[in-house]
Amino acid sequence: MGMTTDPREPVPGDAFGAVLRRCWASGARPGTVFAVLERDDGRVDVEDAARYFAGPDGWIPTERWACAQAVGRVLDVGCGAGRHLLALSGAGHDAVGLEPSAGAAAIARERGGEVVQATVTQPGIGLGAFDTIMMLGNNLGLLGSRERAPEVLASLAALAAPWARLLGCGMDPYRTADDGHLAYHAWNIERGRLPGQATLRVRDGAMATEWFDYLFLSPDELARLLEDSPWSLSGVEWEGASYVAVLDHAA
Amino acid sequence: MGMTTDPREPVPGDAFGAVLRRCWASGARPGTVFAVLERDDGRVDVEDAARYFAGPDGWIPTERWACAQAVGRVLDVGCGAGRHLLALSGAGHDAVGLEPSAGAAAIARERGGEVVQATVTQPGIGLGAFDTIMMLGNNLGLLGSRERAPEVLASLAALAAPWARLLGCGMDPYRTADDGHLAYHAWNIERGRLPGQATLRVRDGAMATEWFDYLFLSPDELARLLEDSPWSLSGVEWEGASYVAVLDHAA
Repeated sequence: MGMTTDPREPVPGDAFGAVLRRCWASGARPGTVFAVLERDDGRVDVEDAARYFAGPDGWIPTERWACAQAVGRVLDVGCGAGRHLLALSGAGHDAVGLEPSAGAAAIARERGGEVVQATVTQPGIGLGAFDTIMMLGNNLGLLGSRERAPEVLASLAALAAPWARLLGCGMDPYRTADDGHLAYHAWNIERGRLPGQATLRVRDGAMATEWFDYLFLSPDELARLLEDSPWSLSGVEWEGASYVAVLDHAA
Repeated sequence: MGMTTDPREPVPGDAFGAVLRRCWASGARPGTVFAVLERDDGRVDVEDAARYFAGPDGWIPTERWACAQAVGRVLDVGCGAGRHLLALSGAGHDAVGLEPSAGAAAIARERGGEVVQATVTQPGIGLGAFDTIMMLGNNLGLLGSRERAPEVLASLAALAAPWARLLGCGMDPYRTADDGHLAYHAWNIERGRLPGQATLRVRDGAMATEWFDYLFLSPDELARLLEDSPWSLSGVEWEGASYVAVLDHAA
């Protein structure tokens, strides 16, 4: 039909928190509430919000493995509604979540989690040092980009006890056969980015988060990003295209 | 984080057909494939594509009622993947589907439906006259807008036998408490539209259909649109905010 329309942009806001709130309010049942992830190449993906409330049985095995490695004080970076955080504190750990979404942080608190609403690069003062830092649910992506990663890695180090360990869940962008992802990698190379740097926003109803960068890395790329950082890669646990990288803090 | 990004528009294409194809290929199971409906106020809604394959048990009661009214030759306007069409032909009717999406039309044919790939305003020649015209699944929305409706109604009349009946499923836009819809109605009034005129596109992956207008009407508004048309409103069957309008062709 080809209407002439001048579509409005969505309203900026905490769409991630709004999705989680509706999902939580509806009993966090699968198949009821969905987040729309939009990428800057015009791609949309739909994600069942119930995954943000899954218990350990619903996690990939490497995330269960990662949580089993927790020792001492634990920081869960990007804890969302608290799926890992609550399992960690339930297992007796002194665990704190860090979550920039006000809506997500509020839900994680209602569910009993100790949560600081902040980003990893501006976590505020007084959090102290952590022995284990978790970045699960692909949250190694919070490294953002080649340019942003050093600042994020330094911020993480500032939160780390001398011999701390970081367990970060990532997704190898090269282990995909999806033509859309491969075309996106090519576009990223053209614009001087790492292939797996995804510029995304979460949309819910008429609301959208700001665009943010989320970085999908191979372990080799990760190792290179770590070269001049206070972290070194000491191991990788695979599950399909997904992995948990073990990073040691060189004190 | 507020990245500076210049997001690309999705690639124009048959996103509706692509969603249905993936859903059909995955066994049309609920919870596997989703369509994203984007409205020009920046709102997105997520729709399980399996609904396009639901059998009569999965329909709203008024749609079952509408199919039971079919007599003679039946035209199913906007038949999609054929959910109503196949039930109608399975019940012994001489039923033809009209569907502009090449992908949807192909699936409906593979499933045994007789389908003409065309829009209602350009249906081609040789289709002949129909005794019953179905516009189910909210397809009264294909009336489009106050301005477009007369052309659509005339095209439908050109496909109608002298005493034909049209059964059209609609949604009363005034029976909603959704603030987002209410704000959209207000915006529509500002720009001189009927409140329930929705400018939409279907998105799937990096693809999107063109923007199209889909018209949600109260039965009163529908009756007014019919005033100088070859159709008259002879009945309305309600189910919640949804209804089936019965339109008689004044030969």
